[in-house]
Amino acid sequence: MEKLNKGLKIIQELAAATSWPAAVIPMEADSDGTHGFWPEGFSSGAVAAGIKYSSRKDLMLLSADAPCSAAALFTTNLCCAAPVMLSRKHLEQSASSIRAIVSNSGNANAATGAQGMDDALAMAEAAARELAIKPEEVLVASTGVIGQLLPMEKVLGGIVSLPSSMQRNSVIDTAQAIMTTDTFPKFFTLEVSLSKGNVRLSGLAKGSGMICPNMATMLAFITTDAAMTPSLLHEALQRANRSSFNAITVDGDTSTNDMVSILASGTGPEIASDSPDYTLFCEALEALMIFLAKLIVIDGEGATKLVEINVVGASDHKDAELAARTIAQSSLVKTAIHGEDANWGRIIAAAGRSGARFNQDELELHFNDFIVLKPGLIADFSEESAAEIMAKNSYAITLRLGSGPGCARIWTCDLSKEYVDINGSYRS
Amino acid sequence: MEKLNKGLKIIQELAAATSWPAAVIPMEADSDGTHGFWPEGFSSGAVAAGIKYSSRKDLMLLSADAPCSAAALFTTNLCCAAPVMLSRKHLEQSASSIRAIVSNSGNANAATGAQGMDDALAMAEAAARELAIKPEEVLVASTGVIGQLLPMEKVLGGIVSLPSSMQRNSVIDTAQAIMTTDTFPKFFTLEVSLSKGNVRLSGLAKGSGMICPNMATMLAFITTDAAMTPSLLHEALQRANRSSFNAITVDGDTSTNDMVSILASGTGPEIASDSPDYTLFCEALEALMIFLAKLIVIDGEGATKLVEINVVGASDHKDAELAARTIAQSSLVKTAIHGEDANWGRIIAAAGRSGARFNQDELELHFNDFIVLKPGLIADFSEESAAEIMAKNSYAITLRLGSGPGCARIWTCDLSKEYVDINGSYRS
Repeated sequence: MEKLNKGLKIIQELAAATSWPAAVIPMEADSDGTHGFWPEGFSSGAVAAGIKYSSRKDLMLLSADAPCSAAALFTTNLCCAAPVMLSRKHLEQSASSIRAIVSNSGNANAATGAQGMDDALAMAEAAARELAIKPEEVLVASTGVIGQLLPMEKVLGGIVSLPSSMQRNSVIDTAQAIMTTDTFPKFFTLEVSLSKGNVRLSGLAKGSGMICPNMATMLAFITTDAAMTPSLLHEALQRANRSSFNAITVDGDTSTNDMVSILASGTGPEIASDSPDYTLFCEALEALMIFLAKLIVIDGEGATKLVEINVVGASDHKDAELAARTIAQSSLVKTAIHGEDANWGRIIAAAGRSGARFNQDELELHFNDFIVLKPGLIADFSEESAAEIMAKNSYAITLRLGSGPGCARIWTCDLSKEYVDINGSYRS
Repeated sequence: MEKLNKGLKIIQELAAATSWPAAVIPMEADSDGTHGFWPEGFSSGAVAAGIKYSSRKDLMLLSADAPCSAAALFTTNLCCAAPVMLSRKHLEQSASSIRAIVSNSGNANAATGAQGMDDALAMAEAAARELAIKPEEVLVASTGVIGQLLPMEKVLGGIVSLPSSMQRNSVIDTAQAIMTTDTFPKFFTLEVSLSKGNVRLSGLAKGSGMICPNMATMLAFITTDAAMTPSLLHEALQRANRSSFNAITVDGDTSTNDMVSILASGTGPEIASDSPDYTLFCEALEALMIFLAKLIVIDGEGATKLVEINVVGASDHKDAELAARTIAQSSLVKTAIHGEDANWGRIIAAAGRSGARFNQDELELHFNDFIVLKPGLIADFSEESAAEIMAKNSYAITLRLGSGPGCARIWTCDLSKEYVDINGSYRS
């Protein structure tokens, strides 16, 4: 309960500190998460099936009253999990008529071979039976330990009791049910004013290990009441993903189970391709996804700090991204961030090995607005002022490579001893 | 003293456990390292100049009686340090007549701009003055904190007192003088039987942070009495480097100061290109460099285990290397190794995101000779047997991707809480 309140406070503080696009109306996260969270036409629920954890919910169902347009991005890890393969297939079959997502934590159903595929399908079938829909209208997602078979008796027993837990307004239970090493549930809802009225976007997500950018990363389920075609929805999702879930890293490891999905019920205003409304919708979706992505980094395994890594002035965006990712993933940079040590040499050394092209004499480095390194490798700064910034929970590191047009932004966290603790014996 | 004895024991144990090539005669490392360490024609010494550390030696000189053939590999980090730039230049000018290497710890003289270049040159000039040779016959290497100017008064004062410390037979002081976060000095000497007599190869190296493969990595100074042209020496060094220093990782960070050099005095047998002797020499050089590289991983920051990552059966060597490096650098794999948890899912997940091509149903995973995962993703193994292997200080993880000819081998260590401790406040 204490952890939950701490988490809700983090969500509120981040919402207050966020510069939302002009057309976006962020909805205050309240203490019980019950104020009309889901857009019109959706409900969700969760139960404790006892898959791995005792005395907590670990199985959830998100359901739509009517067939939805849907889109999703999946991990590009070659060892992708059974639910990823199944959901990809169901989405191909039913992109205009997805009705539900069933998801469990505690077991990833990854690297489980043919039995794993059977189990994922059984989950979809069981959920479909409860909702009186077709199995191919159900997406399945699992998260947790890799390489163990799902305890299907518990899973199927849990699915039977899911419908009675469904609520239109509550999300905390649902968001908690997909947590693994996350310390708090991650969700947010916002509205965006369009020409024909407001559209709502609500999403939940989970972290917090095997988090790496570079592809569709993480479990995140987003819903909207907008009326959109599956292909337009896919385009919007892909676009927003680039600067949100694909721009974060906790530990550089891309999971076998990553999936970001969006369901659109169509009960709200219609959004056409190339319209001003579409642009606003994309901005709102990006803002929501960046918000959820930041929550994942804040709650990264053992993390105590959220640091924005900006690289500007690169020859092109590709170089900027190379440098930003390498800095964001450097263990030496992350431990220095943890130790609040302004060891700027590690930052430029990471850029130097990243493959980005630059001349080290042109480098310029800022912590927030404070200049640490001037061109000519002149680092004549006050350690006290740098330490003051590094003591914050959240700040930006900006490295200018030169005078080119390329820029990139990645969010990362620090590397702490707790990370080692959490991951030394994760399976037990 | 206790640490030193522990280090010497590690060197002896690793030497005993190594399968040396047939023509190689490893020389036992003795407790004071004084039994004729250097090949004919070399001597070395060290002093405490007080550059960063108090009460320990931090400045060393390796000197050759006569001009040597020389070759070196340098970091490819764009932010390379001043001594790297200077040594590269001196090697271009004097590849047939290098006479000395002067090196300090405690300060990398990296990211120090024009003043850093002047300081590196002043080190070469001071050493040349003491040895009555030309500055361009001196290589310079520095290691330690990035971005701080060298305390030149201390450095130059130290160089003046170096000649009186020179010994032909002792190496421990010299190897200690280049240590940063290393816990023990790293050195080894061996001989190889060639057609015209034995050739000796002696080397010293230092770790133990910013250690990443992918290019010429680390400080290592190797000497030999073989008579070889600089270009043949360069070819041999490059070849051996691929499977030794370029095949290790501690933290994935490639340093700004990496340098591996070899000096050949020519007082021993001549080695011609394309001769059987050259093949034997290359084998011996590779064995020495792998030995020193392993010592660096064993002494990696916070490391408690040396793990050999083998990837076999890949479509080609490039794929095998991609997979092996990604596994070796995965924080999740490294923490599981630390926690002695047979979390094999993390290993195949790392391979899956590496970019290597394979079908997950063909994967096969071994810990030493013990099979953990069979094709079809069948992981029906005894946790006790796996735990027994993972409790060892050193073992091999072998992942078969399929039935292709590609293979690669990388050495890595575990990720411990001590790593975070060491790197949270390295500059202070």
